Amino acid sequence: MGLQLLRVWLLLFLFGLVAIVGGGGANVGDFNIWPMPKSVTNGHRKLYMALDFQLITEGTNYSDASGILKEAFTTMVDVVQMDQALDANFSALHPSVVLKGLQVLISSPNDQLQYGIDESYKLLVPSPYKPDFAHLEAQTVYGALHGLQTFSQLCHFNSATNRIEVLMVPWTIIDQPRFSYRGLLIDTSRHYQPLPMIKKVIDSMVYAKLNVLHWHIVDTQSFPLEIPSYPKLWDGAYSFSERYTFAEAAEIVSYAQRRGINVLAEIDVPGHALSWLRKHGMNESEAYQYFVLRAQKIALSRGYEIVNWEETFNNFGSKLSRKTVVHNWLGGGVAEKVVAAGLRCIVSNQDKWYLDHLDTTWQQFYMNEPLTNITNTEQQKLVIGGEVCMWGERVDGSDIEQTIWPRAAAAAERLWTTYNKLARDPKQVTRRLAHFRCLLNQRGVAAAPLAGPGRGAPQEPGSCYSQ
Amino acid sequence: MGLQLLRVWLLLFLFGLVAIVGGGGANVGDFNIWPMPKSVTNGHRKLYMALDFQLITEGTNYSDASGILKEAFTTMVDVVQMDQALDANFSALHPSVVLKGLQVLISSPNDQLQYGIDESYKLLVPSPYKPDFAHLEAQTVYGALHGLQTFSQLCHFNSATNRIEVLMVPWTIIDQPRFSYRGLLIDTSRHYQPLPMIKKVIDSMVYAKLNVLHWHIVDTQSFPLEIPSYPKLWDGAYSFSERYTFAEAAEIVSYAQRRGINVLAEIDVPGHALSWLRKHGMNESEAYQYFVLRAQKIALSRGYEIVNWEETFNNFGSKLSRKTVVHNWLGGGVAEKVVAAGLRCIVSNQDKWYLDHLDTTWQQFYMNEPLTNITNTEQQKLVIGGEVCMWGERVDGSDIEQTIWPRAAAAAERLWTTYNKLARDPKQVTRRLAHFRCLLNQRGVAAAPLAGPGRGAPQEPGSCYSQ
Repeated sequence: MGLQLLRVWLLLFLFGLVAIVGGGGANVGDFNIWPMPKSVTNGHRKLYMALDFQLITEGTNYSDASGILKEAFTTMVDVVQMDQALDANFSALHPSVVLKGLQVLISSPNDQLQYGIDESYKLLVPSPYKPDFAHLEAQTVYGALHGLQTFSQLCHFNSATNRIEVLMVPWTIIDQPRFSYRGLLIDTSRHYQPLPMIKKVIDSMVYAKLNVLHWHIVDTQSFPLEIPSYPKLWDGAYSFSERYTFAEAAEIVSYAQRRGINVLAEIDVPGHALSWLRKHGMNESEAYQYFVLRAQKIALSRGYEIVNWEETFNNFGSKLSRKTVVHNWLGGGVAEKVVAAGLRCIVSNQDKWYLDHLDTTWQQFYMNEPLTNITNTEQQKLVIGGEVCMWGERVDGSDIEQTIWPRAAAAAERLWTTYNKLARDPKQVTRRLAHFRCLLNQRGVAAAPLAGPGRGAPQEPGSCYSQ
Repeated sequence: MGLQLLRVWLLLFLFGLVAIVGGGGANVGDFNIWPMPKSVTNGHRKLYMALDFQLITEGTNYSDASGILKEAFTTMVDVVQMDQALDANFSALHPSVVLKGLQVLISSPNDQLQYGIDESYKLLVPSPYKPDFAHLEAQTVYGALHGLQTFSQLCHFNSATNRIEVLMVPWTIIDQPRFSYRGLLIDTSRHYQPLPMIKKVIDSMVYAKLNVLHWHIVDTQSFPLEIPSYPKLWDGAYSFSERYTFAEAAEIVSYAQRRGINVLAEIDVPGHALSWLRKHGMNESEAYQYFVLRAQKIALSRGYEIVNWEETFNNFGSKLSRKTVVHNWLGGGVAEKVVAAGLRCIVSNQDKWYLDHLDTTWQQFYMNEPLTNITNTEQQKLVIGGEVCMWGERVDGSDIEQTIWPRAAAAAERLWTTYNKLARDPKQVTRRLAHFRCLLNQRGVAAAPLAGPGRGAPQEPGSCYSQ
């Protein structure tokens, strides 16, 4: 039989014969914030999070009538405390090491989520003003939301003491994103995504500080969205139950907005326009151009920003409105032409930032630099950001999370973190990304192992941190 | 360019030029309950679920002091209503078509969860006693919980009317499980599973009426469980954070119990016992037998049931306590020998019921009959049930759900449904299982497509119901 496991089942744990298997576990107490903030200093002390951790806002200009801040704070504490059976006995701890709560000061009373708002924040743990609290200040509530996320990553459950600890204080974190447009595309036409899945994706975007959900709602395969004024359109859904009512779509938009995420809704115009084309005596190219330019005029006249896929630029770029934002997807080398022509650009080159390409590794996602070959500082400003694309041909509700994560996180850091704090070699961030991936798992997000292709399964037993 | 999609991004939905793409969606209004109840009759009418759907218990013997019923009811309504934006205006509906709530009558005041308790229930929609309510009666609260699950599968959100409907009433469902032990094994030694994932697995087991979570907590690779009297044991965890405190393990047990699921905790005894072996002048086989028999005596003396993996039976079956339950896993043909020897048996033959074997199809899971070759009715009673096994060598928090579902559901029906209502050919249940899989997705459970191997990704765009 060899040195085999003796497998005996017992409903009772306690056996004097049980011996220790394997070595001691590694202490993964090193701190890992993802994405890396612009500026971080920290120390060597430890604080403990009080069980009834409070939010205080004395001195703020923001009334939180909409409840956005309170909801985000409560969610953050729940996520950190994760229904753990925490030790309620704080009597053994000196009051000076107990963090009672977080004071949040927001300058702007306005919580309308706009593209380009100030998302900066400053986080001090503990507060120099109120040392039994942590301190968070931001221009807008959306900056504060980012600060809450960073704070949550400083908190760790210590299974030996059953307490939530904040290690390596004092922290001084001053942070803001490098790019204002940090997107994730999801595609609900190739496969319907149930509402709980879309909300889970939004929740996970918040953890990585992504701020645009590009919702590619319809396409050739299915039209799942209710358009009240054209009620037959959603007969093009796969089935009666694989549809989004107008109210559900509105709810997704609201759910995202309350978390600092703008939803960019996209509806493609299908090729049935060909018949309309012919009627007006145009060939396809002419009709395409006519349609795009007319659509642009209509949108602009109603005060909308317009984003066009890059073919419009490639084919008739000089005719596009100067306000156009061009979404590059075909490959590298396009962004530089767009900004040289004076237009703004969003980067999603498919060779590096398409999540459905399973063979694209997280390292490639990380190293995809939007400003490649763009050295003119004025032109650099025209690159408003980038987006990773989760096309839906081969993802449905069963596998979207692990196809998105952790590779989207690699891009999320490329889009958030200040250029000079980005790693020059992805090896330098492997450990920190592995920690973020395991943090996602701990929060119930099915982020795949780092090793291997996108959506890979772990190849063998092992620690989350090493796979 | 050909007949290509014109892809234009607009932040505005409404365009007169948009044409309908594709055909109408299929109406998937056929009813599909999984697992199939013992006895079902239904009709042709429709009822609407009231927004504030109530639980009433007048006439019950069960006080619900523990809140198990109320919690299960509230969860069930939440899952059915799924935060949908439901139409609150019921004025257009005749009161006779509105279902105000569910009356639940439970005979036993006792809610201690024991192996072998009565899990039967009777569900009448609407109630013949109170026609504006549905009626659920059961011997125990755990039978009632199963009834709630079945009721939830009768409810459908109609996206055209924004209402939850119960179609094809009146329903008379009288149901009870075929086998009393219907298990799922998870393995948290080869890969740590975060607590939220374990809870999600428990929630999904409830949907399929599985009732035993066999928690294979430790093994050679890691020992993640806190044993308070032996505090060094869990130094064998992969890392400090990949551990379960005693309180967390107790919480999982409680979470499961409140949902009608018994947790069978398993700790394997490692091969370090070899040195102990040698000391006492025994060879391995002798020591193994000695250990098992002594362990059995200790467990029995404390009033526990004992379950042993089949090697104990295969090697020294005649010496085992007659109270032993043998867990068959190696292959077919063992169960019949166990019951012929007068011992009870749980079936998990690895050629058909190992979920980590990705090439085992759902059809094979479905058709694996525990009573194969057991014709003697007294011996048949000794097969107490079966268990599907989700070994963890290649599953972690990122892919456990889709590896378990939907194949575990196929086995769940084999274990619950009365033999003569099981399909003789799995083709007969494809549509119904696809519906259950899509219901799981709608509830946020990442159940994989039916087609292909375990944990397969969808191969192309399409409806959930057809993949």
